[in-house]
This record gives sequence, C-alpha cells and structure tokens, in this order.
Amino acid sequence: MALIVHKYGGTSMGSTERIRSVAKRVAKWVRAGHQIVVVPSAMSGETNRLLGLAKELQPAQTSTAVMRELDALAATGEQVSVGLLAIALMAEGLEAVSYAGWQVPIVTDSAYTKARIESIDDKKVRADLAAGRVVIVTGFQGIDSQGRVTTLGRGGSDTSAVAIAAAMKAAECLIYTDVDGVYTTDPRVVPEARRLATISFEEMLEMASLGSKVLQIRSVEFAGKYRVPLRVLSSFTEWDIPIEEEAKSGTLITFEEEANMEQAVVSGIAFNRDEAKVTVLGVPDKPGVAYRILGAVAEANIDVDVIIQNVSHDGKTDFSFTVHRNDYQRTLDLLKSQVAPATGAAEVTGDPRICKVSIVGIGMKSHVGVAATMFRTLSEEGINIQMISTSEIKTSVVIDEKYMELAVRALHRTFELDGEPAT
Amino acid sequence: MALIVHKYGGTSMGSTERIRSVAKRVAKWVRAGHQIVVVPSAMSGETNRLLGLAKELQPAQTSTAVMRELDALAATGEQVSVGLLAIALMAEGLEAVSYAGWQVPIVTDSAYTKARIESIDDKKVRADLAAGRVVIVTGFQGIDSQGRVTTLGRGGSDTSAVAIAAAMKAAECLIYTDVDGVYTTDPRVVPEARRLATISFEEMLEMASLGSKVLQIRSVEFAGKYRVPLRVLSSFTEWDIPIEEEAKSGTLITFEEEANMEQAVVSGIAFNRDEAKVTVLGVPDKPGVAYRILGAVAEANIDVDVIIQNVSHDGKTDFSFTVHRNDYQRTLDLLKSQVAPATGAAEVTGDPRICKVSIVGIGMKSHVGVAATMFRTLSEEGINIQMISTSEIKTSVVIDEKYMELAVRALHRTFELDGEPAT
Repeated sequence: MALIVHKYGGTSMGSTERIRSVAKRVAKWVRAGHQIVVVPSAMSGETNRLLGLAKELQPAQTSTAVMRELDALAATGEQVSVGLLAIALMAEGLEAVSYAGWQVPIVTDSAYTKARIESIDDKKVRADLAAGRVVIVTGFQGIDSQGRVTTLGRGGSDTSAVAIAAAMKAAECLIYTDVDGVYTTDPRVVPEARRLATISFEEMLEMASLGSKVLQIRSVEFAGKYRVPLRVLSSFTEWDIPIEEEAKSGTLITFEEEANMEQAVVSGIAFNRDEAKVTVLGVPDKPGVAYRILGAVAEANIDVDVIIQNVSHDGKTDFSFTVHRNDYQRTLDLLKSQVAPATGAAEVTGDPRICKVSIVGIGMKSHVGVAATMFRTLSEEGINIQMISTSEIKTSVVIDEKYMELAVRALHRTFELDGEPAT
Repeated sequence: MALIVHKYGGTSMGSTERIRSVAKRVAKWVRAGHQIVVVPSAMSGETNRLLGLAKELQPAQTSTAVMRELDALAATGEQVSVGLLAIALMAEGLEAVSYAGWQVPIVTDSAYTKARIESIDDKKVRADLAAGRVVIVTGFQGIDSQGRVTTLGRGGSDTSAVAIAAAMKAAECLIYTDVDGVYTTDPRVVPEARRLATISFEEMLEMASLGSKVLQIRSVEFAGKYRVPLRVLSSFTEWDIPIEEEAKSGTLITFEEEANMEQAVVSGIAFNRDEAKVTVLGVPDKPGVAYRILGAVAEANIDVDVIIQNVSHDGKTDFSFTVHRNDYQRTLDLLKSQVAPATGAAEVTGDPRICKVSIVGIGMKSHVGVAATMFRTLSEEGINIQMISTSEIKTSVVIDEKYMELAVRALHRTFELDGEPAT
C-alpha cells in the first residue's frame, strides 16, 4: 500500500465520459490497496472560456485588484472538476471528498495569476485518506494570507500535484496526460522519436524549458527540490489495463545519479520556433553596455532567452539576443528609438524567421566533443549556425527556421536516438 | 448616503453585455453616494448546466456525500458571476471586490442543497465598504461548520441578498429581475393586471407561495422576520434612468400596517395549474383516519397542498387533497394499493385537470363577505367550485383547469383590480 498522487490534465477531464474513465482508473488503484489523492485540471477549454468572458468586460487586465478577481474567476474551472470527479467516484462505489485549494488549505503568496505555493496543511486530507476516502484536490490554485483565492499560472495543476506529493511524502506522483511519456523529440517532426523510460530531473528541466510542453517547468523544479518521483503517462489507454503495466508505463523522472550512468550522452532534441533574433551592431565596448541594452528591454517587460556577446574589434562589439516572436517588433522599435541613440550603436537588425534547436543530455557533463558533433552534423547538412549558447547539459543553436525539421532529424540520427518509426 | 443591497437574477447576468449593464447601474448608485453590496445569481442556464453534468455521472443523487459535492459544484456558478461583475465594475472606474459565501463568511447548517443561513459576519464587508469599494457577494451559498460549501436551494440568491441586508441593517434590498414588479395577477392571463406600488409582507408571502414566481418564498419569510424593506424592480430598464425614478419603481414589500389601511380589500389574484386532486371516498370517520391517509403520503415524500375533509354522513366521510401534478399517478397508486385497504375506504378517485385560484388581501382580515363575493362571481360565470380552503388573508378554490383564465379575469374585475390594458 502506498500513498500516490494522480494528476489528470484538461483533455483527460474533457467530458463526463472522460471523467467516468478517470474515476474507473482511480478506482482500480484504490482497489489495489493504494491511498490516492487526485488533482484534476479544469475541463479542457474551461479556463479559456472564463478568461474570455473577463476579457470582454475589461480588455486591459493590469491592476492587482483585477488580477485578484481573475483568479477568483479562473479557479472555478478546477472547482467544477473536483466536484464532478467526486460524484463519478461515488458512482463507482468509492467514498470520495473534494477540496478546493482554500479548504486544504494550500497557502500561496499574493502574486495573483502567478502565485507560488508557500505551505500545504495536509491534516484534513490525511484524515480523509485514513478513513478510506479518495481525496480530490483542485489544481492550479490556493489561498493567500488575506483569504483570497490565487492561481499558479498556466499549467499550475502540475505544480499543485507535485507540491501535494511533496508535502505528503507520496511514493510517486503520476501525471496523466494526453501523451504517453517524454520523447527524444517531437514525433510529429521525427517519426523515429522514442519514448524515454526514464529521464533525469535536470534533463527534464531543460526539455521543459525548451518547449517540450509535457510538464510545466515549475512543477519539475518543485519535484527536483523535494525529490518527488514523477511519472508522465497517458490517460488515454484503456482504464482497465493491469495496474502493474500502468505503473511502469510512461516516463519516470529520476533523481538518482547512478540511474543515469549508462544512458546515452544525449537524451533528447528540443526545438522552439517561437523566437526572434535581434542584434545591436557596433556598440562601443564599455562597461555597462550590456545592462544599458538589456535593462531597457527588461523594463519594457520583454523576456529575453539566448544572449550572445562576442569579443570586440576596434573597441566595438555586436550584441545579439532572442525574444518571443510576439515581442519582436516591439523590441526592434525600442532598440532603434531609445537604446541605439543612448549607447552609440551603429545599427539594429533582426530576424523573426529563426528557430532554436537544442541537444539535451546529462551525459554531456562527462563527455567532451558533444557540441562539436552537433556542429559537424549541421554543417554536413549545409545549415548555417547563427548563434550558439551552452549550459552544462545542453547546447543550443539558433538557425534559419526553414532548416528546423532537417536539423532535428539529423541530430536525432547522429546521437543514435532513432527507434522504430511510429506507426 | 445609505447602505443598499442590490440583487440581480440570472437573466440580468446572462451575458457579458448584460453584466456590463448591471455594472453601469451599480456605478450610478455609487456615484449618487450610496454604499452598495451586490448579490448576483449565476449566469442564466449555468446552474442547470453544472447539475446536468453531475446527473450524467450519477443519475441517482441521494447520499449526503453526493449532495455535498453537488453543492461544491453548483456554487461555482455564482463564483463566476461575482468575479465577472467585479471586473466589470473596475472597468467602470470603481473599486470593487468579490466574496464567495465562505469568504464573508455566510455560515449555514449542513443541509446540503437546501441549507439555511445561521449567521453572517459582516466585518470584512463593512471594512471594504468603508474603504469606498463596491462589495459583490455570491448568492445561493454559504459554508458550514465543517468548512464545506453549501447551497440554499433554487432561488437561494434572493434569500442571500435579504439575509445580507438584514445582517447589515441595509436601508433597502432591491431585487432586480426580469419583471418590473409584483402584479395584481399574471398579465399574460389578464391584460388589465396592474403593477402594485406596494404589497404587504403577508400578502407577498401568499402570492409567492401560490405560484407567483417573482421572489423565492424563503427570502420573503426572511425579510418579514428581520423587517428588511424589499423592492422588486426591473433590471431591463435603461441603466441610466434617473436614480430617483428607479428608486421608486417596481413594487415595495412593506411591513407597516398603517400603510395598508386604505388599500383594496383584495390585492391580487394568484393561480396555479401544477396541482392535481385526489379523493378517498367513504372512509369510516374514526379518530386517526386523516393521519393514516396523509401519513402514508408524507412518508412517500409527496407534498400535499390543500386538504379538505367535510362532515360525515352515516359514519363515513370523504377526504380530498391536492398534490403536485407530477406526483398524481404515484399518489393515486399509493392510495389504491395501501391506504384504501388499510382504512376501509370505498373508493379512490382523482383528477389532474384542475387548477387553484386564490384571492389574496390583507384587507380580508377586516372585511366580511369577501369570500362570498368570490363565490358569487364564479357562480355567475357558471364555474363549479370543487374545493375551498381559506386562511386569514387568502381564499382559494379548486376548479376545473379549463375555467382558469375565465375565473382569474372575472375575479380581477370584481375586486376592482383592473387598470389600463397592457400595451
């Protein structure tokens, strides 16, 4: 018998038929002797519907008071889900009880629409589990010190599930979703992409931050901090597959170094075409110039990803970075109108038609020449590299977006990630 | 400057356009210097949608645990409304803050799906009002001593509004709805029906219990108990009509006896065609027979309205009562299979095609012959009276349903309620 947290995403909760299937699956785990806490997301589309209504009333949502009300509004989506799932579980003959975040309580700070969990009091939940009940807790939300409902931001239900698993020292946190695990890369781009049976926490963090949308990045950070064993698996298998099989399906995110000793140097290829590149050319290379450029960008609330500054020539340097494609024009305007005049830069250029491709692998820490192999592969395909950025377990390049699929497939092959083509 | 509670029904909150109109109306009252607490219902259709989802998962909703979850679920409808209305009010340039029932808190008993309010702590609401904020409180719901969300049953938002007005000693509670007040009778049946400028609390209670669906009956009881001045008015007038005009529109429910001194003997004609009549014929007239008949009916959870037992002949009597038409067949079966054999009754008969017509008026207390005038009027129209039941301020008759409109129009004319025909 173990205490296990199940988290179900919006598509898994998308209809009463799907909810009934979730209930049957949970019942299977309970009948096998486990204590189960379920964290469901809102029914798919519901959060967007609610925020859409708010947008019709107040197009510019900026003040703290408005964000507080948006949270009160958006949190109802998950409150509907827990009520429905509790009823579905009772229809399966189980005892079940739902909790909104404020009832647990899950205490957060007051950063409405992107609150952070501060503490979870699991006393009531434990008592219900001990009494033989399935406990269903709303994802995505909590309560702040003023008694106001807060939300954790998009994908926050993953974070809720992991936080509850951490607070309750659950044996495992199962993230049921509409994909069956973490892949070496996107199977839509590379048919030979393989599901990884395990992935290290650090790699998962890089994959998530690089746009593999399987898990919300904050939930991975949380899992790493509290060492919560996390498994991503599909809720779209038949609910009655044997529990032993289900328990080993999907991808396990691990924290044990030794488990990774024998694994491939590169675990996966991530990519992202949501970015655009901007370059400030001929900036006088003086102390503080990077701050003068990026400070202005940060002040305009523009998120910057890759940043490159190369060595200078004749006292001048070129400064490049990438931003979200939606911020491209705004960034360019800002640089031209304010930053270039202030820094004495010669010119501002940019390109929105780029993509970022990254190889991720904890094995890179101990293997030299991995980046070189990446660059050689791209060169053999005739792909020009525009920017390079590296970390301990990741090497990213910015290239022309038209080469994205070609680059991902070539790298997937080079690093021997290809499996059987998906059927 | 006064503290005023506004309550808006589901159709008044039915779309973002309607919500914006509510916000503009509230803003008008605030700008005139009033402190406003708003109690909105769920957007029309929302509560049915939520309970419909639950029904798909669990057709038979009976256990306390299921009802507790139904309440958690259904309460989200009003939680959506308060968030949206707060945002709409901020878009109008006002400060606004929303409260769910549990945040106020509005404490209720634990009778899920039909809870009763036990206490309201208005401390936080008062502080917000004092700080210049519009306070928006969810209708229909509260929190019980176990920290569980409860609902007050259908139409419960009226009760919430009146309870809040009572707790805060509000100057008036304005119930904005899709009709413009309480009428002498249903204008769809009698085009000459007039809106009443005032109606006494007792009359309103009878009108509401007799099927005039303007206000939930529990809210009227609550208003009577705490003497909350209650006004029913339309939210479908232009929001920018002068506030002096709006403040005098609709129908005021009064508690002052003197205000009713000069009013008509009969204030209104109520009717109801949702009932059916059953008669147990030839029952031996012995002590306990009424209990033996009605006890069995009550045990089967069938609500009984009018009950008639006339004097006996030859030691036998006839016993008639009315039930909701939906319960007619079940009642008849029960009487034939169990009650008749047990009581020695000769026969059980019934008729679902009846209606109840009532004259209501506080003036009846002090005027003799009002009932006689009613009976004469019906007789002049050739309408046979099947059952008669009276109270201090009401006389009801049961007649063939095909005469309903005729009876209502004739009585409306006889008691001089006709106004200008509605255009």
